[in-house]
Amino acid sequence: MSRQPSFRVAVLGATGMVGQWLVHLLDRHPWFRVVALTGSDRSVGRPYGEACRWLLGAPMPDWAARMPVLPTEPGFEAELVISALPSEVAREAEPRFAAAGYLVASNASAYRMAPDVPLLMPDVNFDHLALLSRQRDERGWTGALLTNPNCTTTAAVLPLKALMPYGVRRVHLVSLQALSGAGYPGVSAMEIVDNILPYIPGEEEKLEKEPRKLLGRLTDEAVEEAPILLSAQTNRVPTLDGHLVCLSVELEERISPEQAMAAMATYRPPEEVADLPTAVPMPIVVRREPDRPQPRLDRMAGGGMSVVVGRVQPCPVFTLKFVALTHNTIRGAAGAALFNAEALLRWLGRV
Amino acid sequence: MSRQPSFRVAVLGATGMVGQWLVHLLDRHPWFRVVALTGSDRSVGRPYGEACRWLLGAPMPDWAARMPVLPTEPGFEAELVISALPSEVAREAEPRFAAAGYLVASNASAYRMAPDVPLLMPDVNFDHLALLSRQRDERGWTGALLTNPNCTTTAAVLPLKALMPYGVRRVHLVSLQALSGAGYPGVSAMEIVDNILPYIPGEEEKLEKEPRKLLGRLTDEAVEEAPILLSAQTNRVPTLDGHLVCLSVELEERISPEQAMAAMATYRPPEEVADLPTAVPMPIVVRREPDRPQPRLDRMAGGGMSVVVGRVQPCPVFTLKFVALTHNTIRGAAGAALFNAEALLRWLGRV
Amino acid sequence: MSRQPSFRVAVLGATGMVGQWLVHLLDRHPWFRVVALTGSDRSVGRPYGEACRWLLGAPMPDWAARMPVLPTEPGFEAELVISALPSEVAREAEPRFAAAGYLVASNASAYRMAPDVPLLMPDVNFDHLALLSRQRDERGWTGALLTNPNCTTTAAVLPLKALMPYGVRRVHLVSLQALSGAGYPGVSAMEIVDNILPYIPGEEEKLEKEPRKLLGRLTDEAVEEAPILLSAQTNRVPTLDGHLVCLSVELEERISPEQAMAAMATYRPPEEVADLPTAVPMPIVVRREPDRPQPRLDRMAGGGMSVVVGRVQPCPVFTLKFVALTHNTIRGAAGAALFNAEALLRWLGRV
Amino acid sequence: MSRQPSFRVAVLGATGMVGQWLVHLLDRHPWFRVVALTGSDRSVGRPYGEACRWLLGAPMPDWAARMPVLPTEPGFEAELVISALPSEVAREAEPRFAAAGYLVASNASAYRMAPDVPLLMPDVNFDHLALLSRQRDERGWTGALLTNPNCTTTAAVLPLKALMPYGVRRVHLVSLQALSGAGYPGVSAMEIVDNILPYIPGEEEKLEKEPRKLLGRLTDEAVEEAPILLSAQTNRVPTLDGHLVCLSVELEERISPEQAMAAMATYRPPEEVADLPTAVPMPIVVRREPDRPQPRLDRMAGGGMSVVVGRVQPCPVFTLKFVALTHNTIRGAAGAALFNAEALLRWLGRV
Repeated sequence: MSRQPSFRVAVLGATGMVGQWLVHLLDRHPWFRVVALTGSDRSVGRPYGEACRWLLGAPMPDWAARMPVLPTEPGFEAELVISALPSEVAREAEPRFAAAGYLVASNASAYRMAPDVPLLMPDVNFDHLALLSRQRDERGWTGALLTNPNCTTTAAVLPLKALMPYGVRRVHLVSLQALSGAGYPGVSAMEIVDNILPYIPGEEEKLEKEPRKLLGRLTDEAVEEAPILLSAQTNRVPTLDGHLVCLSVELEERISPEQAMAAMATYRPPEEVADLPTAVPMPIVVRREPDRPQPRLDRMAGGGMSVVVGRVQPCPVFTLKFVALTHNTIRGAAGAALFNAEALLRWLGRV
Repeated sequence: MSRQPSFRVAVLGATGMVGQWLVHLLDRHPWFRVVALTGSDRSVGRPYGEACRWLLGAPMPDWAARMPVLPTEPGFEAELVISALPSEVAREAEPRFAAAGYLVASNASAYRMAPDVPLLMPDVNFDHLALLSRQRDERGWTGALLTNPNCTTTAAVLPLKALMPYGVRRVHLVSLQALSGAGYPGVSAMEIVDNILPYIPGEEEKLEKEPRKLLGRLTDEAVEEAPILLSAQTNRVPTLDGHLVCLSVELEERISPEQAMAAMATYRPPEEVADLPTAVPMPIVVRREPDRPQPRLDRMAGGGMSVVVGRVQPCPVFTLKFVALTHNTIRGAAGAALFNAEALLRWLGRV
Repeated sequence: MSRQPSFRVAVLGATGMVGQWLVHLLDRHPWFRVVALTGSDRSVGRPYGEACRWLLGAPMPDWAARMPVLPTEPGFEAELVISALPSEVAREAEPRFAAAGYLVASNASAYRMAPDVPLLMPDVNFDHLALLSRQRDERGWTGALLTNPNCTTTAAVLPLKALMPYGVRRVHLVSLQALSGAGYPGVSAMEIVDNILPYIPGEEEKLEKEPRKLLGRLTDEAVEEAPILLSAQTNRVPTLDGHLVCLSVELEERISPEQAMAAMATYRPPEEVADLPTAVPMPIVVRREPDRPQPRLDRMAGGGMSVVVGRVQPCPVFTLKFVALTHNTIRGAAGAALFNAEALLRWLGRV
Repeated sequence: MSRQPSFRVAVLGATGMVGQWLVHLLDRHPWFRVVALTGSDRSVGRPYGEACRWLLGAPMPDWAARMPVLPTEPGFEAELVISALPSEVAREAEPRFAAAGYLVASNASAYRMAPDVPLLMPDVNFDHLALLSRQRDERGWTGALLTNPNCTTTAAVLPLKALMPYGVRRVHLVSLQALSGAGYPGVSAMEIVDNILPYIPGEEEKLEKEPRKLLGRLTDEAVEEAPILLSAQTNRVPTLDGHLVCLSVELEERISPEQAMAAMATYRPPEEVADLPTAVPMPIVVRREPDRPQPRLDRMAGGGMSVVVGRVQPCPVFTLKFVALTHNTIRGAAGAALFNAEALLRWLGRV
């Protein structure tokens, strides 16, 4: 075997929920070596093992437990920066890293809709990375900034991408979202035991906008949004991980559930990204049992990187209705940012 | 005060979840006196207090605990029969009761769509009781049979009824349904802790059909279904009581959320039923907080008989989107059957 | 009927979990009329309906929603002050109220073990109110301060009180405590779904000390602690209300489960308090079914003021083992403070 | 490397909860190859993938999905039989297998207390396997039958074993047990959401007896029970996996928590079993954080085979109190039976 590439990576906002998943996923990453973990003032200077209230079932890696938490400031030696910062912190911090020459793969929402920032799922719109040329020109950054979409968006976009050849026109989507999406402490147990919260601040807006950019067409260093109308309603439910989304989709072509399932099950990532460490051969797993996908049983499909689709049926109002499940903290956040970082290295020709 | 009317009532299928709620609600009913509780072979002959695994927070009434469980056969002296039978049992048993002269208010789905059986919500379509004349003519029954809709249907139909003046054309609805809807033992805890079940057998079909009949127009002793297209997706979630439904509605007239909220909040039951014991002055309660309705906080609105609507917003795809909550075992089942029984007595001129 | 007494009451710390239960219980109290609700700086000046994130299933009373939240300072006209303050705030604030002439019934732990402050359950140790003479003498207060025990303590003390005639020597107790005991936001949902927390700060110490004072003997204006050894282990579980406690008790006299159940079931409050509005005729309800008490089914026994005991069995190590359940926010907090306020008025001869 | 041993294994009762865990654990077992899966009449003849309602987060192995379910009858070619049968079926079936020459490692309770059947935890009482000589002599079996203890027992026995040198005299234990312990469908969700069940049929008796045999002394082909008094109370709580047990222990020697933690943390399996595939180097993991162990965070310690102990404190009544956690379906059932099968092969000199 040839020697594996090795890149120094920092995780910004490493003590939060998504930061913890990043540390967990990076523990076994074949290319990346963590050199810095950053946190808020409350955590800086303490060992990560103390500063972080670890909530994953898998244990915290020893190397992470011993690392001191650094301030979220450029300075450490690293090529890659994975950002799990809260959006309001990201807005100010991420450009500083990009300007200082770091390659920043961000999970924050701050720059997702910026016209010169790729909103990327490598197995959906790898070509959108071309926006980075414009980004460098306009912003004068020596580094780069790219983002992954909102966790729930990932559940919708993969199956919609597979249906694009049939003309996606209008989409209704209703989500049942897991607790980890709200971080820690996030939702109070008093609010969610024997209960549902029919409101997640800012979430519906993201779901109605982000898919249009992700599924849009790259034209002359800009993304022309896909002409899809989306209507979203979002709910918080008492599951730990795994966002379930119920979709009704209107297509230009009236295809059958069988055709739709075939299109999804055979959807493959573009060649450029298919061999990346975080890529999965089957980005969409189609289940035919009537009662799947279920969050607890299906969220780890493809190591948490596959979206699982089921209950594909004719829709009496639109063309098709179905259910999609994404592991919100892997495909929807930590895994998404890692996958983007890998794709960026590929696009830059460094792997 | 004038003397209150008094009717002898039997509950068929009294040991199940809906049967328990009926016993609970009948405990304080001003008109009805329970004279018989029936159950399956396993229960017959035992005192109700032993035969029934009581699951309500409120204690079992003493009078019920002591009653012997009877077989589900005509024979006892009662004017009214409230049926909480499983559908397959109801199909055979309920006509026998109606033929034997009992007035049967059924919660079972067996006869809901039969053209001569009223599918009734008294504050929605009281006039549909006129179908009973045809029923008596055609079936030769001396009694009568009427039904209430599926529990989830009730959440959708009340707000849709209030919007009918604006021309309801197409409706998407996605439900998050409570465990009590599956009865006891119903859903295994192993299936629903940290999980969602995206499938409830037969439920989507009911939701796509029943509102058309309930909102239909009575013409010459038949109900002409309302020309509404509905698409439903149903999910089981780990709440105890209270079905939440996310709706997107296409109206002929493009009204604002304010107009819709006004139409719902001012919706009143028809005069004929407004003073019935189970009627509520406000069948639809509109909440303006962004995070309501919530099952645990709102299911008991109007004693469990009001549907609570919230999050009324413009829909980017249709006209409006909103969330509706119904107490599935009160407004959606036991309370519904009681309300129907009262309405039947009113229609017959007996109260 | 004779006219009912009427007392003006203030609730300190009214926006928290216990404060909400106080508002709920005071809504129907026959003697008390709420004239002031206080809160922290964040809430002061706003209407209670806005300042408070209401979490009870029953709706907030209208009168409360409209009241402005006041600072926690003496000044309003009220005879009685019910305190649901956090302990660290109570430590400083409550003496100021007592010094200013208010009668303070506190739920906070700050002064529970002070030798001149009654730690009171009126149906257990009404006579301990005599400590108030010493309190007035020593502190020079024109008002008074009395406290109720920790919520979990109430589950243990009532059955132990009924067993005192048989010589309670040693007690093991392990609790399974509800979420509402931690207040709001309290426990994060991420910590408790599919999980148990085997630690509640400060709780075990309280359980090992408070019963000794409550069951102690009043001698010459001091309480001589009961010579009982207690060992406690406390756990947080995902129930909303209702603390379950498993006890093993060593008695001097080797009585049978039947004798113990008889002693508990026939335990009655002392005459002086039996007719108070919050008193229940059966402070201990004994269940003989093998699987009771259960929090959801039994917490509302006696309106939430009865402790429910079950599974009384011989203990292979000590004399008896059994399970006890208390509604932690009623008998264990809000109801306890109200009951104490009523008992204080009785002791003062004002009712 | 030397070639690995290979044994043909059958799983009896493979469709249940413990059977599923066995299939999962056997999927990666270095020595064992599954040749038969048996089930009840309802399942016989169908492929395992259809007959079994799989409930684990990890997917069902393909080889298992395709195997036909066989009746629970001797006949297939296998050296080893792992039994996950219900106790009442095991009582009749297991002796038939042992008589037919199979080596049977059973998880069922039917023969645990039989004087000639080893009740085995290999890292606790490996020497008890000597009972098998007596078993063969008395029963004339060419095979053998050995059993593992009740799931909850495993949580208690490992720490007690480590404390045996200090003279364990009396033990109080209260369990908080996970849902998977009741199998599928097991506990109804309606019974356990917002609730606790303080009763598990037969469980307390097992906890009070089994540790005495496990910790007993082998004398002349019999086990003399350890002279320990135990008192148990057991509760079902809404966790998926992981039984938590609160213990108070009276020792002859008054040791400190530090000494106890040292004894537990340094407890090692006997040399004969330390290298078996399912053995763990640290059978007891000691945590010093105040809020551990927690089921969701700690149940997978040692791949689910380590018992995690925490909150070791002085006990005001006995010597020490602490909390222990076992993964009930791995260390407490499926992993236990596998470990026993391996130990049996070692004892027979076949590995």
